[in-house]
Amino acid sequence: MQQTFRLVIDCPDQVGLVAAVSQFLVQQNATIVEANHHTDLQTGRFFMRHEIRADSINMGLEKVKQAFTPIADKFNMNWKMIDSSKKQKLVLLASHESHCLMDLLHRWHTGELPCEIPCIIANHPQMKQYADWHNIPFHWVDFKDQPKEKAFSEIEKLIEAYQGDLTVLARFMQIVPDHLCKKLAGKAINIHHSFLPSFAGAKPYQQAYERGVKLIGATCHYVTSDLDEGPIIEQEVMRISHSDSAADMVRKGKNCEKTALANGVRYHLEDRVIIHQHKTVVFA
Amino acid sequence: MQQTFRLVIDCPDQVGLVAAVSQFLVQQNATIVEANHHTDLQTGRFFMRHEIRADSINMGLEKVKQAFTPIADKFNMNWKMIDSSKKQKLVLLASHESHCLMDLLHRWHTGELPCEIPCIIANHPQMKQYADWHNIPFHWVDFKDQPKEKAFSEIEKLIEAYQGDLTVLARFMQIVPDHLCKKLAGKAINIHHSFLPSFAGAKPYQQAYERGVKLIGATCHYVTSDLDEGPIIEQEVMRISHSDSAADMVRKGKNCEKTALANGVRYHLEDRVIIHQHKTVVFA
Amino acid sequence: MQQTFRLVIDCPDQVGLVAAVSQFLVQQNATIVEANHHTDLQTGRFFMRHEIRADSINMGLEKVKQAFTPIADKFNMNWKMIDSSKKQKLVLLASHESHCLMDLLHRWHTGELPCEIPCIIANHPQMKQYADWHNIPFHWVDFKDQPKEKAFSEIEKLIEAYQGDLTVLARFMQIVPDHLCKKLAGKAINIHHSFLPSFAGAKPYQQAYERGVKLIGATCHYVTSDLDEGPIIEQEVMRISHSDSAADMVRKGKNCEKTALANGVRYHLEDRVIIHQHKTVVFA
Amino acid sequence: MQQTFRLVIDCPDQVGLVAAVSQFLVQQNATIVEANHHTDLQTGRFFMRHEIRADSINMGLEKVKQAFTPIADKFNMNWKMIDSSKKQKLVLLASHESHCLMDLLHRWHTGELPCEIPCIIANHPQMKQYADWHNIPFHWVDFKDQPKEKAFSEIEKLIEAYQGDLTVLARFMQIVPDHLCKKLAGKAINIHHSFLPSFAGAKPYQQAYERGVKLIGATCHYVTSDLDEGPIIEQEVMRISHSDSAADMVRKGKNCEKTALANGVRYHLEDRVIIHQHKTVVFA
Repeated sequence: MQQTFRLVIDCPDQVGLVAAVSQFLVQQNATIVEANHHTDLQTGRFFMRHEIRADSINMGLEKVKQAFTPIADKFNMNWKMIDSSKKQKLVLLASHESHCLMDLLHRWHTGELPCEIPCIIANHPQMKQYADWHNIPFHWVDFKDQPKEKAFSEIEKLIEAYQGDLTVLARFMQIVPDHLCKKLAGKAINIHHSFLPSFAGAKPYQQAYERGVKLIGATCHYVTSDLDEGPIIEQEVMRISHSDSAADMVRKGKNCEKTALANGVRYHLEDRVIIHQHKTVVFA
Repeated sequence: MQQTFRLVIDCPDQVGLVAAVSQFLVQQNATIVEANHHTDLQTGRFFMRHEIRADSINMGLEKVKQAFTPIADKFNMNWKMIDSSKKQKLVLLASHESHCLMDLLHRWHTGELPCEIPCIIANHPQMKQYADWHNIPFHWVDFKDQPKEKAFSEIEKLIEAYQGDLTVLARFMQIVPDHLCKKLAGKAINIHHSFLPSFAGAKPYQQAYERGVKLIGATCHYVTSDLDEGPIIEQEVMRISHSDSAADMVRKGKNCEKTALANGVRYHLEDRVIIHQHKTVVFA
Repeated sequence: MQQTFRLVIDCPDQVGLVAAVSQFLVQQNATIVEANHHTDLQTGRFFMRHEIRADSINMGLEKVKQAFTPIADKFNMNWKMIDSSKKQKLVLLASHESHCLMDLLHRWHTGELPCEIPCIIANHPQMKQYADWHNIPFHWVDFKDQPKEKAFSEIEKLIEAYQGDLTVLARFMQIVPDHLCKKLAGKAINIHHSFLPSFAGAKPYQQAYERGVKLIGATCHYVTSDLDEGPIIEQEVMRISHSDSAADMVRKGKNCEKTALANGVRYHLEDRVIIHQHKTVVFA
Repeated sequence: MQQTFRLVIDCPDQVGLVAAVSQFLVQQNATIVEANHHTDLQTGRFFMRHEIRADSINMGLEKVKQAFTPIADKFNMNWKMIDSSKKQKLVLLASHESHCLMDLLHRWHTGELPCEIPCIIANHPQMKQYADWHNIPFHWVDFKDQPKEKAFSEIEKLIEAYQGDLTVLARFMQIVPDHLCKKLAGKAINIHHSFLPSFAGAKPYQQAYERGVKLIGATCHYVTSDLDEGPIIEQEVMRISHSDSAADMVRKGKNCEKTALANGVRYHLEDRVIIHQHKTVVFA
């Protein structure tokens, strides 16, 4: 895959902003592979993402960042410039359902997901087989015979030890404590098995069955202290009918969960998501 | 269109039920055009709909109904037998948004919706033009300068006067009072402009915009006293993105609203919907 | 609706292009409402659309165009700058099916479609009612008792007489002759009732029924001399099953046709479509 | 999972058919879990599937089949009665793309797909890892250094040796010879990576890219001698745009391929598919 630099910016909307950034890119002789803009007219916030061929620029990443800093300061930008060849470390958390875990692992294994997976953590030991198949270290964390805070303390240490850049809750069925949500803000992604805000909380397919909805879904979102209230990255839905039992919905919904999570994670890994208040801009 | 008799049944599930009904149909020499069954395994309730060519039977509808009554009694059936050539009277209620109203009118005008439309009622006088185009009596009901209960009393009388079989709230933006909901139970259909149970109540697109969902929708449901909680007949969704303003969602969502409402109304008119507790069986 | 200027560009991809355009917009003090870029990496062609608040600029449209011309020349641009308040004239062609016609008329009537409709032309006289309702001149063109070339010559003259900017074939079931296709290139939009390239030509729903597909669709495309081969603007699909007859597909597919055509026409009217060879870039 | 007997019938439509079958089921005291009917009004063919609780019947499968035979003969039925607890043997064929293979394997591994997988055959040796992980015998068949007919002869022998009931071409990129198609008629399922009949043959995503369609898809169908012309079981589509390269389509389309194939295979394994001429009835 071609090496690129990704310049991702959000800042107050101002005249001259795009011109300044474009002019800077011309000065570096940058070949732009992809460019996306968005202005939130309600809040007056501007969002921009450029993907640039690394080999079109004469300097390395650090030099370019230095050169760009005065412009960023002038326009009061929240920004980053990322080298696409430096892969993020993705820590996977799972419980007893393996479909999202295996789906992400296979996409990683075949090169679709551009990341490293330094470890898999689960509170069910049978997930070890999937880690073993892929030669990834596995850590079982006991959520039954020790207090949950101790269990989460283990998880926190593992994420630190493996220098996880992104934590993905691949149907991890434990509620992350407040302080860890805050610590991982913008760096932890969850898949919820409903079309949020419908059916937050426990047993969403059972809730959907009881309400009698005609479509079910899944929601990929950032983890925040407010359960199932984090910024939404991606959602999927599918049609069901009265003939589907709650068990049928569980089975069918897995397809939505896998796709929504995989897309959400990929968007994040490719720096396509910008969190804005409690929503996201996704340059998909 | 071919004349059919529709036999729609729900009752406790019992061995011998289908055989008894099928045997009865054989005795009448009935040609079955369409047959649908469903057993709700959780509640043990059975649902069945047969559509039969009227000209394949030697007797008229009333005779067939008489002949069927002993079977219905034996199996404790909740049932009806309907002559497809006897069109239901559909009373349309609207406010200031005309897209659902015109969509239903055009489907009726071109013969897609098998019903009569004896009158259109609205609390905004500009809806009269659509009634006039179709030569349908129009009634403006004042919701500003008289108490709402008086306004709804007018509506109730109009529905009675026109002998409405089904009342359709085609984006009618007034909350129907409890006693009228009860009176019209199973005979009044609403379109709500969100993917329920998400965003019940007022301004659902604004709610959707603020939550940052990635899909919007519409829900066609029976009217009940609990606002936006009635049995769901049909739902539609469509993908949106961060670049859609609340106004864009309003515009885009109209396509979902029209389709969901038109399908829901058609299912009802063709006796394809059976209400079961607070859910529906829809033999679509 | 806010008045905007739309600057739409396609040209060979070159370093400095975006910077030059952005710098120009800064010099005009332009407030950008929406900006979209695309580079076709295969052909090296660049596409850009800016929507700018007209009141943010000190000059009128003609002056801005003059000022921009040197930049356009330098970069060898194919370009236009459009005043959003100057509505295009949309000439509607229909046959005997009215659903697409009425759908577009209603969107225009309620202000959703930003255009004028100077006339409706049909080869079936009963379409006149829809024209009358909207106070639009109607012209019946005889396709039975005169040669088709004469009929099309009448249509051509009507489009000229009404100064049509865009001709929309709203289920107009006659094959447009080669010379008229060429004359209207990029200015005539058709809706085909299949998911192209499947089932081009006559009776696509019957073809779909016979092939046993599980999804049907509709395709909105520019008219070209090669029947059903023009650049695709928008497509819609929906799920069907073995229980749907060809007639059911006709009924259900209308929803796809209406939505695909309305979206395609709106994209065109808002200058969101750029034709590139036999494909389109659509900044939706 | 509850043991059931599945009675699947197709025959000329006749009065008395459903009554006879229902009466038979009553005599066996059968508890019906699911029942589906369909009449093809065009060809006058009738299709029926019943799923019956095995423990509600006093006899074993063979006895029930014997008892049913006179009815089947009387109505000239094409029929089968299947014991759900007897799992079919599914032979998997793959080439170098692993997403469909792994998807099916995982659904099998977690009990979602009710079958046995006696072996995996591939013309690319690296597929062995997936077989090894699941402890399934793997056979590499050489398609480079021997004539294709020899390679297919090996495959044919393997299918026989493993007593395969169903052969699934999970992105197996070799054209099955005529005689083998005929031998496996109704027992071999393929996934084609386009929305058929669009883009049959080689490189469908490249074809889709070149045509400029706005939706891509995948088609699960029975293998026949006419390439990509077999009866369609299931199709999936997804939206794309001008910004998607052919490579993006390949990546995105995999989600469609996996879902369409998995659903198609499950329908087949649960005896929900009846082939009728070159189409299918699917009681999904």
